[in-house]
Amino acid sequence: MQQYLNEIYEEIKQTHLTGKVASYIPELQHVDPSKFGMFITDVQGNQWHIGDHLDLFSIQSISKAMTAALVFSIMDEALWLRVGKEPSGSSFNSLVQLEYEKGVPRNPLINAGAIVMADLLIDLLNDPVPDYLNFVRKLANDGSIEFDLNVFESEKKTGFRNIALANFMKSFGNIHNDVDDVLDLYFKTCSIRMSCKQLADAFLLFTNHGFHKNTGEQILTVSQTKRLNALMQTCGFYDEAGDFTYKVGLPGKSGVGGGIVAILPNKYSVAVWSPVLNAKGNSEAGMKALELLTTLSGHSIF
Amino acid sequence: MQQYLNEIYEEIKQTHLTGKVASYIPELQHVDPSKFGMFITDVQGNQWHIGDHLDLFSIQSISKAMTAALVFSIMDEALWLRVGKEPSGSSFNSLVQLEYEKGVPRNPLINAGAIVMADLLIDLLNDPVPDYLNFVRKLANDGSIEFDLNVFESEKKTGFRNIALANFMKSFGNIHNDVDDVLDLYFKTCSIRMSCKQLADAFLLFTNHGFHKNTGEQILTVSQTKRLNALMQTCGFYDEAGDFTYKVGLPGKSGVGGGIVAILPNKYSVAVWSPVLNAKGNSEAGMKALELLTTLSGHSIF
Amino acid sequence: MQQYLNEIYEEIKQTHLTGKVASYIPELQHVDPSKFGMFITDVQGNQWHIGDHLDLFSIQSISKAMTAALVFSIMDEALWLRVGKEPSGSSFNSLVQLEYEKGVPRNPLINAGAIVMADLLIDLLNDPVPDYLNFVRKLANDGSIEFDLNVFESEKKTGFRNIALANFMKSFGNIHNDVDDVLDLYFKTCSIRMSCKQLADAFLLFTNHGFHKNTGEQILTVSQTKRLNALMQTCGFYDEAGDFTYKVGLPGKSGVGGGIVAILPNKYSVAVWSPVLNAKGNSEAGMKALELLTTLSGHSIF
Amino acid sequence: MQQYLNEIYEEIKQTHLTGKVASYIPELQHVDPSKFGMFITDVQGNQWHIGDHLDLFSIQSISKAMTAALVFSIMDEALWLRVGKEPSGSSFNSLVQLEYEKGVPRNPLINAGAIVMADLLIDLLNDPVPDYLNFVRKLANDGSIEFDLNVFESEKKTGFRNIALANFMKSFGNIHNDVDDVLDLYFKTCSIRMSCKQLADAFLLFTNHGFHKNTGEQILTVSQTKRLNALMQTCGFYDEAGDFTYKVGLPGKSGVGGGIVAILPNKYSVAVWSPVLNAKGNSEAGMKALELLTTLSGHSIF
Repeated sequence: MQQYLNEIYEEIKQTHLTGKVASYIPELQHVDPSKFGMFITDVQGNQWHIGDHLDLFSIQSISKAMTAALVFSIMDEALWLRVGKEPSGSSFNSLVQLEYEKGVPRNPLINAGAIVMADLLIDLLNDPVPDYLNFVRKLANDGSIEFDLNVFESEKKTGFRNIALANFMKSFGNIHNDVDDVLDLYFKTCSIRMSCKQLADAFLLFTNHGFHKNTGEQILTVSQTKRLNALMQTCGFYDEAGDFTYKVGLPGKSGVGGGIVAILPNKYSVAVWSPVLNAKGNSEAGMKALELLTTLSGHSIF
Repeated sequence: MQQYLNEIYEEIKQTHLTGKVASYIPELQHVDPSKFGMFITDVQGNQWHIGDHLDLFSIQSISKAMTAALVFSIMDEALWLRVGKEPSGSSFNSLVQLEYEKGVPRNPLINAGAIVMADLLIDLLNDPVPDYLNFVRKLANDGSIEFDLNVFESEKKTGFRNIALANFMKSFGNIHNDVDDVLDLYFKTCSIRMSCKQLADAFLLFTNHGFHKNTGEQILTVSQTKRLNALMQTCGFYDEAGDFTYKVGLPGKSGVGGGIVAILPNKYSVAVWSPVLNAKGNSEAGMKALELLTTLSGHSIF
Repeated sequence: MQQYLNEIYEEIKQTHLTGKVASYIPELQHVDPSKFGMFITDVQGNQWHIGDHLDLFSIQSISKAMTAALVFSIMDEALWLRVGKEPSGSSFNSLVQLEYEKGVPRNPLINAGAIVMADLLIDLLNDPVPDYLNFVRKLANDGSIEFDLNVFESEKKTGFRNIALANFMKSFGNIHNDVDDVLDLYFKTCSIRMSCKQLADAFLLFTNHGFHKNTGEQILTVSQTKRLNALMQTCGFYDEAGDFTYKVGLPGKSGVGGGIVAILPNKYSVAVWSPVLNAKGNSEAGMKALELLTTLSGHSIF
Repeated sequence: MQQYLNEIYEEIKQTHLTGKVASYIPELQHVDPSKFGMFITDVQGNQWHIGDHLDLFSIQSISKAMTAALVFSIMDEALWLRVGKEPSGSSFNSLVQLEYEKGVPRNPLINAGAIVMADLLIDLLNDPVPDYLNFVRKLANDGSIEFDLNVFESEKKTGFRNIALANFMKSFGNIHNDVDDVLDLYFKTCSIRMSCKQLADAFLLFTNHGFHKNTGEQILTVSQTKRLNALMQTCGFYDEAGDFTYKVGLPGKSGVGGGIVAILPNKYSVAVWSPVLNAKGNSEAGMKALELLTTLSGHSIF
């Protein structure tokens, strides 16, 4: 494994990235575009890493997988009354599909779907904001994880598309709580800062049939875990899910902060970070690194 | 004319209306569904009326024609940099078209377009809210016209679709001011209460080549007036513009409060009110009454 | 009138056209782009003309207004069971709207709608192809009018979009006859060659309350004529209907052969021809000429 | 395995199916709706089966996976210049997405994509119809496989949606050969009749890293096989791909003849057939049977 990481690191360092750091959230623009880190942890507890694997970055949409896990663990199949489980087939903030489907988002891993999840969490949790943070800390087994309030404020002030999505779904009756409260929680979940190490640790849940890696607690059932993995496979990469599946062949989730986490069921989870994004909004070097990893290792679910 | 009104009144009173009073704004539901009024005024100053022609009702989208007139009178052709002048071809609050056309609404007479007009008025007027009200009072030559603050508050609390539209356009850069300020002005313009008499008087502007009926002041140029009339012809009735043009053959504008105003250029303006709406959101009896008027009188622009 | 035509001619001759001759039908590319003709005829029988007003050109979509008149004169309101009467709000060969509306075209003046009309004519006429030609000859009072079989063959071989439209509607059950037969008739109607004079003469029908200009025969009822004029106003210019209405203010119909016919109800009909098209598929100089005509003359229905 | 099949058979026999046999191709309506067969073959050559596993049925869209394999084996990555590899996100014969994406289908496993594949095969094969049949016979190691000319003729006469798709793509330049020739080949590939046994045998190619199960010939590279499996995972079930992935967790392909084939990479391929379809166009009992198989066996790629 370490040898693969070394090879990947060499190749990425020589790659000229053509994309750009995310600019739609002003606060995210200040990140050093040359950053690159990668961390792998397997179910036996082995760990391998390279580069800036302990640097904290904004996880953004990667939080959607953890949000879906938390809601699914509480509601089980009742979740699907409020959101679909099909790929969206169009870019991640499209209102068109939402209009045709009467305010029901295609899946919980796109923005509209994650906003519905936030609406559900307000009903399901006692104290949604700290409870959510504690869930993430538990998954990663790391109590130091925090929200980034600058990113939160920045997104709240400029996230007009997400405000539009939430109000649009509210007009269809698919948001039950106050729109501002729902968006507050949604933007908070996106603003969490984590390192590659923390993300790989947290996603062991999905690798490990729903059991917590350290405590052995069963957070998701085997069946729920399998199903969330399937969702990440078909819906985890915006409009590039097909291409990611095609090239990498692992379930995963990306974020516009430049992070990607992927898992090989029953084997390992891997997190990679590089803030330069391709035209589809996924980390350019991160996609490349994961493609190299599965090519070099021969690992793939297919 | 009076004989036509009498005949129309008889026929409407015997018609069983199958639609419903607008319910999407809670405050509008309290209107008596059996109300019906009609008022005609010509350029010579003659007036004819029937039924509840002095009752005040919520003008709602009828305000859009006056808003467009006010903006057009100040900006002239520069207006069309921010909004189109083509029919929308889909229902009045569709986000689909807005997404394909990058946040530029199809015309100023649909909700999205009128929200852009409100954004412009904030830049163009010294004190937008009272200045707008004064413009409407001037057109109708009646200083008693007021906003209905209950309707305003009701719409502000429940107008999720319009909040979505405004934020969506803001995300494309086509709203320049604070979204809340823009929506405040927009909801205020819709909340104005007027009678059939006041509306018919106000719309004499469009009948009368842009000249004020009493003072003779030229508010719109002849060319601007002709162009706004053309816009009302093709875009004044949501998704039913074609059918209205087909059956009535006069330019006009309707609102979900149940009012419709139409004009025969150079001759007269006519306002009708009945709060029961058809499936397209236009007054059921109002559409019928105008169709009868043009059939009985033989008046039509075609 | 003649003075207006002279002024228009001067101005058009000095205008640098930026568009292109229609290329999607190979046979239409061979037209001389510098051609320009205009012909006006009024209900009293007066005539004025300028330029190449006797040159024959391919009328293309202008035929749709005559097709609609023929079907409407036979079926009356039953026509609207098969086609709508609302503006299309998107470009003239869009399949999107057709898919959402289950194979029912928005109006008879777009391609899909005219194909449905051709399907109806096969059921309504004894010998559709010659019967249709005779109807056009009667309207223009000119037995020399012919199909252009080169254009017909050219369009039949390359009209993939129209073949797609017809088969798509057939899949929804809105085409009753054999698709090839329907398209044959449709392409034939588009291939007719006429001059500005012949077109202006034929469209006197719409100016003249449905009465034939020479024989006095009532071909359409007054009401039917009024309604077709209203349709031409809202739907006659593809995606540019709003702009044409806005600038010209007359009902009319254009074709990609570069012809446009418009009418001032009860007064006159006017045909103009210049083969260079703007981005929307309407004659660039033709649009300009009609805008000048209504500006110079002050004529407009608004 | 046999025990799982027995249990599935018992459960299916007691299930009341609520769907209907495919009716859009008249010839397919004559199938006995109570038929049910299932066949599993693993890479060691073991075989298990139940019910009507030797009955021949119309494979319909299942052919698309074999067509994609044949084209991919010849063109390799150049294939993706003509078709995408993303899920379609809307129903299997939508023209909307095709219009927005300028005639390039989302993936080779939807109708539009498979029509483009047929266009490519005309260029790539010496004698497309027999060459294609021979490829399928080789995959299944069974020279008795034939086209069903009644189904072919039936589909050719009534496949208006597919004729529309092909002409629409031709209008964008994404079909190079004569539309009739392309559709002839496309309808032929869909009309092939195979049994569950033959299909399971043929799909061992995808289970077995691209190697032919009997001859050992490498038909696809390991990488190509992995990539086609990934495509089947995200795009193999029309608008139900997400739900299938979610419930079954195996790559596969279904057809409106009621057949479904799925594979567990490196282990086995399984074919199931029951002609009653659910609302999405997939075999109702077939979906259920595969869900039971992965639940009982614990097999899934996730």
